Amino acid sequence: MNQRSRLVAIDWGTSSLRGALIDMADGRVLEEQSHARGILTVPPGGFREVFDDLFGAWMRENGAPCLISGMAGSRQGWVEAPYCPCPAGLAEVRAKVREIEPGPIAIVPGLSDEHSGVPDVMRGEEVQIFGAMALSGLQDGLFVLPGTHNKWARVKDGRVAGFRTYMTGEFYAILSQHSILARTIDTSAAFDEAAFLEGVSRAENGEGLLHNAFGARTLSLFERMAAGELASYLSGLLIGEELRSQSVRANGEVVLIGSPNLTQRYALALRTLGTPSRTLGSEATWAGLHALSSSSD
Amino acid sequence: MNQRSRLVAIDWGTSSLRGALIDMADGRVLEEQSHARGILTVPPGGFREVFDDLFGAWMRENGAPCLISGMAGSRQGWVEAPYCPCPAGLAEVRAKVREIEPGPIAIVPGLSDEHSGVPDVMRGEEVQIFGAMALSGLQDGLFVLPGTHNKWARVKDGRVAGFRTYMTGEFYAILSQHSILARTIDTSAAFDEAAFLEGVSRAENGEGLLHNAFGARTLSLFERMAAGELASYLSGLLIGEELRSQSVRANGEVVLIGSPNLTQRYALALRTLGTPSRTLGSEATWAGLHALSSSSD
Repeated sequence: MNQRSRLVAIDWGTSSLRGALIDMADGRVLEEQSHARGILTVPPGGFREVFDDLFGAWMRENGAPCLISGMAGSRQGWVEAPYCPCPAGLAEVRAKVREIEPGPIAIVPGLSDEHSGVPDVMRGEEVQIFGAMALSGLQDGLFVLPGTHNKWARVKDGRVAGFRTYMTGEFYAILSQHSILARTIDTSAAFDEAAFLEGVSRAENGEGLLHNAFGARTLSLFERMAAGELASYLSGLLIGEELRSQSVRANGEVVLIGSPNLTQRYALALRTLGTPSRTLGSEATWAGLHALSSSSD
Repeated sequence: MNQRSRLVAIDWGTSSLRGALIDMADGRVLEEQSHARGILTVPPGGFREVFDDLFGAWMRENGAPCLISGMAGSRQGWVEAPYCPCPAGLAEVRAKVREIEPGPIAIVPGLSDEHSGVPDVMRGEEVQIFGAMALSGLQDGLFVLPGTHNKWARVKDGRVAGFRTYMTGEFYAILSQHSILARTIDTSAAFDEAAFLEGVSRAENGEGLLHNAFGARTLSLFERMAAGELASYLSGLLIGEELRSQSVRANGEVVLIGSPNLTQRYALALRTLGTPSRTLGSEATWAGLHALSSSSD
């Protein structure tokens, strides 16, 4: 049937919106589009209109169903798709997919976890993890998704057993833009591997981020580090701090999912700990939406 | 001699300027004034004029010498008084006091320390530490000065043996104003001791600030903590993280120096670790400038 031969897959995040037309038979991406139409740019009640404008043609031409992941399923999104608690695999997530009428459009729920009374959440990353499992064939392991709010997810028997969020990306942004470090840091400088690794290694001293971050100020004050190097050093301090609170060393390979400029930093930092990693990019999102759609048949 | 019977003591910081007329015989504060004339408000070359305006009368009437501490001695200040390296006591600091002509006006240098190739600095806090030693009679101990950039100083035989800076106050400001937490936090709410202590205890989980800070987001998202409590919780998370990287537990009493709204939080958090503390306020600055002046006779 034509209806089943295509999937309109959409990743609708806070600040961006990406779509792919996918061949259901083999998961191949036939067409892709990307727009600066994150949910923050959509007025209340305006989601259907944006969707029809951008994806109406794909829907009509292919008679295809549509599956949407990301913040479009949050309280501020199109319709809220309540979190699916961990442990959660394809079956648990599928059972909580929220249909939108008139369809066939559905929104993937995020995942929730809880640690000693404090909740944790993700929205969109769960699809990337499912995609990474499909692409890599791994059913167990540690999956890391760097970003503004990084996710470290433990996968067991093909399900997300649990996860933790780290605000590493956001700390980098606010420290380099709003703290005293902003005066001397040049975040537009090219990545400096040596300065980055110096930061990673510095974080290992156990003195904590609150102290080590001040070192990025004094190294500049004493003219021991240039403005361009400082950005990479701060990035290393933060990623090093994040790794320090993990017990990754003993856990074998890590699967990194995300944009190359971030995943290469994590791969580098993990290598200094002797931890191998493999990397997947945006293809994981499409593979995940495809996996969620396929077996629901 | 009249010249020796009074001291004009000045604490000239980044954003504020305080002065005291001190009786040299016993260190008593005879008069005090305070102005919103921190060094950031003074145009280049304008320090003498501001000084004469505000303190000229005290200088003329009393024929007194003046001693200035704080950021007025930094590169952006009146004249730069280069850092005095640790270990440093009254004698070492006095030897580096920088005279300003025409006098008798002098600027106290800050202190520097170094940890594995990364410098650390303070400016103004050293005077408070000397003052706290004079007021408490302690010649050894751990002196903690909460603020935007907190200082933890180890005092040995009446000298500052070494110190470390923690950006705890600044992290609180940028997280509550510029991060995702800003959306749900009410920093104007009254201090909530229970929420604060919950944050302190949370920091002990060893998961690190980058993860625990995100909990302040999800607790709010899941409506488990109100906006007013969140501010105290975040403050507890940060101070708890700072304490976690210290080895204060085994070190006996801690001397806290600073404003009551901050020192009371540290006293509370330290108490949960079983560490007693005593607290000193702004009087430490005047006692320190008096101590630096007295024995220079």
